[in-house]
Amino acid sequence: MTFDELFLTNLKGIYFAERQVLKALPKMAKAAESAELKQALTEHRDGTQGQVERLQQVFEILGKRAQGVTCEAINGLIEEFTELVDEAREAGPVRDAGIIAAGQAIEHYEIARYGTLVAWAKSSGRKDVAALLQATLDEEKKTDTLLNKLATGTVNMQAAQAA
Amino acid sequence: MTFDELFLTNLKGIYFAERQVLKALPKMAKAAESAELKQALTEHRDGTQGQVERLQQVFEILGKRAQGVTCEAINGLIEEFTELVDEAREAGPVRDAGIIAAGQAIEHYEIARYGTLVAWAKSSGRKDVAALLQATLDEEKKTDTLLNKLATGTVNMQAAQAA
Repeated sequence: MTFDELFLTNLKGIYFAERQVLKALPKMAKAAESAELKQALTEHRDGTQGQVERLQQVFEILGKRAQGVTCEAINGLIEEFTELVDEAREAGPVRDAGIIAAGQAIEHYEIARYGTLVAWAKSSGRKDVAALLQATLDEEKKTDTLLNKLATGTVNMQAAQAA
Repeated sequence: MTFDELFLTNLKGIYFAERQVLKALPKMAKAAESAELKQALTEHRDGTQGQVERLQQVFEILGKRAQGVTCEAINGLIEEFTELVDEAREAGPVRDAGIIAAGQAIEHYEIARYGTLVAWAKSSGRKDVAALLQATLDEEKKTDTLLNKLATGTVNMQAAQAA
């Protein structure tokens, strides 16, 4: 396997992942009770659409067809969210705390993947590709910070008091 | 579902995850070519053993039996590593770059999970539990930084030149 092939495999993995996240986010927003959390997830859905398009640009630059390969990690992360919503049943701060946790786990997966892809693109001298992926990486970090603020600012305290 | 139940479910998830990682790390170390990477993964295996014991302490403090629940995300993350080793076949810098990427994805999953658990423990006024989990969170971040240094310091450049 060449370094280019390794890069492409991981690019296809995150392309699959982003499109799964795109489908999951409206469900997460629907399950949320907090208006702020609903809004954050809805806005992140729109952002994710842009991230998918950025990945398509990367495929184009590399002269490859935009194509996903199944990424079991993201399937597992989304499954954990679905199970949580099932188990928590009622909407409220406890379920919101769980939704934020699931969202942050997804963000961290993406942060790890984009971090790696940016570093690989730079090592291969592909500054154009690195810049595109870096833009998404910055957005994922911002979303993680926002979710963190929602959790520690209001939701966790409400969840602790609800118990 | 109460906040305590949500906490316990997530604690059981990371307990399962850490024990899966404990089993995977020697395989990752074996597949690595770089002596530094081998050493980092071997040392992290010993660290993970300590992290499992810390989780057992948390269960004990909470008066609960230490018990894991299947976490599909970590299974997926480890599967991605296994697939990479299969696909990359030959040991060398390209496979090492892939092993580091898999390792960082695992670290980020743990960082997200421990970050959440620390925040939840604090909101519940459980400073003792928060301190134990924070110690592990700090270790996971250190491991991620170390893997990053290995990748950007040497492995990625070697992988790019090998291609």
